[in-house]
Amino acid sequence: MSKHKNPAPTVDVLIELRDRPGELVFIERAHDPIGLALPGGFIDEGEWAADAAVREMKEETGLDVELVELFHVYSDPARDQRRHTMSVVFIGRATGTPVGGDDAARAIVCNPDALPQPLVFDHALIVADYLAYKRRGVRPPPRR
Amino acid sequence: MSKHKNPAPTVDVLIELRDRPGELVFIERAHDPIGLALPGGFIDEGEWAADAAVREMKEETGLDVELVELFHVYSDPARDQRRHTMSVVFIGRATGTPVGGDDAARAIVCNPDALPQPLVFDHALIVADYLAYKRRGVRPPPRR
Repeated sequence: MSKHKNPAPTVDVLIELRDRPGELVFIERAHDPIGLALPGGFIDEGEWAADAAVREMKEETGLDVELVELFHVYSDPARDQRRHTMSVVFIGRATGTPVGGDDAARAIVCNPDALPQPLVFDHALIVADYLAYKRRGVRPPPRR
Repeated sequence: MSKHKNPAPTVDVLIELRDRPGELVFIERAHDPIGLALPGGFIDEGEWAADAAVREMKEETGLDVELVELFHVYSDPARDQRRHTMSVVFIGRATGTPVGGDDAARAIVCNPDALPQPLVFDHALIVADYLAYKRRGVRPPPRR
């Protein structure tokens, strides 16, 4: 087995709300880096990526999210200045109003074209890729 | 940052050869678990997932693989009996004849419906998902 150090695998979810078409759920991060982000977190050893996504969405937004599809994987070594993380990003759907919890100081629902401030990490790229996919059916290139 | 233990991220590639349509590249693993597998390996810290995929393909098959698309992520905690690994699986294309190297005792090119022995790990599931995608355009479900 590898003795190498590896990037830490995480999950993030693009949550579409059934009664708020065209908008997504974002969180205000409670910890450094402070700022707006997609909800997400680390995958635990022994946990499926999809289960980590559902768990983190419940913790950070209070929502019971149904995962619709795997969207993409983002692994740029510079995407998180703290250490190398690799995010498995899902598209999910939920009903109701998100409420920030755990690492999220607050949850907001917003049209991704009208965010009140920039997103942290590479989440602006993820959202741009998502909009391109939704509008033109184009998936992101393999290296992301 | 998380102090949790995380699954170790890996890559595997479904390599289509330009002059052998309908076939894929497999390797005979040189190390435990011995058996047929898709070529792949661990992502190093500081390395993009896509770069790890291209590097591992070169090491294990000698091929210069062009990644076509991200296919899916496989994270079943039981998929590797040694420890929990999570594989980012790409579809790639190459020209030429693969030659086994590094962790691969031998490389073979084979129609995935006519493999001479079972695949190790969850690679039979990955190949079945790939065939369903190629034949019917259906992507695997999020939880894989």
